Amino acid sequence: MRLFLLGATGNIGVQTLDIVRNSNDKFHVVSIAANKNINLVKEIIKEFHPKFVSVGLLEAKNELEELYPSVEFGYGDEGLIKAATYGDLGEDLVVNAIVGSAGLAPTYYAIKKGRNIALANKETLVIGGELINPLLKEHNVTLIPIDSEHSAIMQCMNGEDKTTVKSIVITASGGSFRDKTREELKKVTVKDALNHPNWDMGAKITIDSATMMNKGLEVIEAHYLFNVAYSNIKTVLHKESIIHSLVEYNDTAMIAHLGNPDMRVPISYAINYPERVEYKGKPLDLISLGSLHFEELSFVRFPMLQYAYDAGIKGGLMPTVLNAANEAAVQLFLNGKITFLQIEEIVIKCLNIFDNELELSLDSVLERDNLVKDYVFKTYS
Amino acid sequence: MRLFLLGATGNIGVQTLDIVRNSNDKFHVVSIAANKNINLVKEIIKEFHPKFVSVGLLEAKNELEELYPSVEFGYGDEGLIKAATYGDLGEDLVVNAIVGSAGLAPTYYAIKKGRNIALANKETLVIGGELINPLLKEHNVTLIPIDSEHSAIMQCMNGEDKTTVKSIVITASGGSFRDKTREELKKVTVKDALNHPNWDMGAKITIDSATMMNKGLEVIEAHYLFNVAYSNIKTVLHKESIIHSLVEYNDTAMIAHLGNPDMRVPISYAINYPERVEYKGKPLDLISLGSLHFEELSFVRFPMLQYAYDAGIKGGLMPTVLNAANEAAVQLFLNGKITFLQIEEIVIKCLNIFDNELELSLDSVLERDNLVKDYVFKTYS
Repeated sequence: MRLFLLGATGNIGVQTLDIVRNSNDKFHVVSIAANKNINLVKEIIKEFHPKFVSVGLLEAKNELEELYPSVEFGYGDEGLIKAATYGDLGEDLVVNAIVGSAGLAPTYYAIKKGRNIALANKETLVIGGELINPLLKEHNVTLIPIDSEHSAIMQCMNGEDKTTVKSIVITASGGSFRDKTREELKKVTVKDALNHPNWDMGAKITIDSATMMNKGLEVIEAHYLFNVAYSNIKTVLHKESIIHSLVEYNDTAMIAHLGNPDMRVPISYAINYPERVEYKGKPLDLISLGSLHFEELSFVRFPMLQYAYDAGIKGGLMPTVLNAANEAAVQLFLNGKITFLQIEEIVIKCLNIFDNELELSLDSVLERDNLVKDYVFKTYS
Repeated sequence: MRLFLLGATGNIGVQTLDIVRNSNDKFHVVSIAANKNINLVKEIIKEFHPKFVSVGLLEAKNELEELYPSVEFGYGDEGLIKAATYGDLGEDLVVNAIVGSAGLAPTYYAIKKGRNIALANKETLVIGGELINPLLKEHNVTLIPIDSEHSAIMQCMNGEDKTTVKSIVITASGGSFRDKTREELKKVTVKDALNHPNWDMGAKITIDSATMMNKGLEVIEAHYLFNVAYSNIKTVLHKESIIHSLVEYNDTAMIAHLGNPDMRVPISYAINYPERVEYKGKPLDLISLGSLHFEELSFVRFPMLQYAYDAGIKGGLMPTVLNAANEAAVQLFLNGKITFLQIEEIVIKCLNIFDNELELSLDSVLERDNLVKDYVFKTYS
């Protein structure tokens, strides 16, 4: 299997390479794309010998070209798309572990080329679901989710007639500030926000977990992945992060996927699909765990979740507005420009001031994404 | 679909008829077998119009024959087998909801006739698994479990490659005496024992839940149903009875089946298999439930579970000895002849005094079953 790994130096990318490393040469890394972590790019080149490497900036590309004359290099958005579509067509899998809306275009062009996708970039479906789903059919391409919740839902539907699915229940750990009141949220710092109780993830998704936007994006992603109406997508606060999600059937039976929080499990599932391959992770021990808890995930405490449902139900460009406003706001928060609660303020403001458009194209989505981010950066920087 | 319902007046039989009643004429009840509840047999005849009816005793058969001249009747073991094999072969399903070893022969002959089986009679596989499994292959017959745990395990394996199953975990409510010490068990009454915390079941299985023999029988049943080694069949005390069982895969993922305790769910699944058909039961609400608990199921507190593993691992006639000793002892307990803890004493005594035999036939199993029961009744009555 030939892998085209986008976001190779990020949290998911690094864990994907770890699975590749332990898979007895089953996978060959043909291309990688990364952004600014050039030291790690060099290590990956030495270990995995990709033919094509894309990085964020031209200067980095130039530096790497001198060091590795036998490797082909690219940079920026164009390099990213080239990493996804590089070379001829074989037994291929594009692993898209890019963070943010930048992940949409490479998925789009990889599908057009006929390459199967393992998707950690939830924005691909959140902002582009209405474009991507018809494209998958047209090119007979399989897209397997890497997000632990969506991997769980997919596995809970294995061998089942999809018309018997009544609802899906996405679990949420509650994020770094699960036990804080909204009053207490006024004073939280970036450092506090980056301290997730269960999962070790990148900065963007950790902040999104704290605001609950991550769960909101997952609701929209699930809608497009599993073709389930928003009214049948539920969320539940499950602080242990052991049940990764559940599917309810028409006879009241629920099937759940459980495991210790370890992203290598859904990564392994996605890149080996349809095979389930041995992974020597920590087995789940229910007895030493003792108990699992479930609470309501309140829209009052977590208004971002409500915004996401609303934007998803409206469809068209509204999920793009939601996501772009959030991406820009989270970046401003991480850079110390705004407070934690201002992330919400920015998102609801953008949802109120930007119009919707129901007919989408890749260009119209990316244009709106830029427009909203520009607005946020200009207004709040 | 034509149903041949054995144990029609018992707990599972009555609930099966309730599913049939609400299935818009999808099922036609061709035959029923019952024991002594003749009033209920009459009601079933009036509502479902079976062609053949078997009851426990000759006198009851004679009485019914006069009342319903258009119905054919039988009685005893022969009548039971006739109820399972009655008529020509069509789109048939034998629902075996008999309690105890009496359920083996009708399953055996129904399979020989080529009829698919929905099995609530766990003794069929516990004492006859080594005979039944080759017979299923030979006659290309499907056997679907009705036990909630085994239905759960089967559903957790839907669409999965069976070679990737690492272990199965059977949950146990703990039964009526879950929170009692062994010292406290010395004084318990039949009435105490029949008061199960979660499930409304027949007397035999409720006592077996209290002694944990029910879980032991389920371990042996699971071994034959799913071809999993005893070392990979685990049990866990889960007092809420919400997770009905789990399957662990080779990548550490666990798939679980959840639902409110309601036997109509696995009955509906078994008789509609491979379809999953709508059942308007009470939906599971994780949030109002709040939490799920897991504890070790101790072999010291519940020695019957250990006896069952040991008998299962020995194989041959030892599961028959285990089951027969237990059936007889439970009957003596229900009749007030022995104390609760004497059930265990009788089982371990029989396991120690009866020899094993590894080559089995239907006759040798039934003969041993009789021998052990006779011994127990003679010794303790």
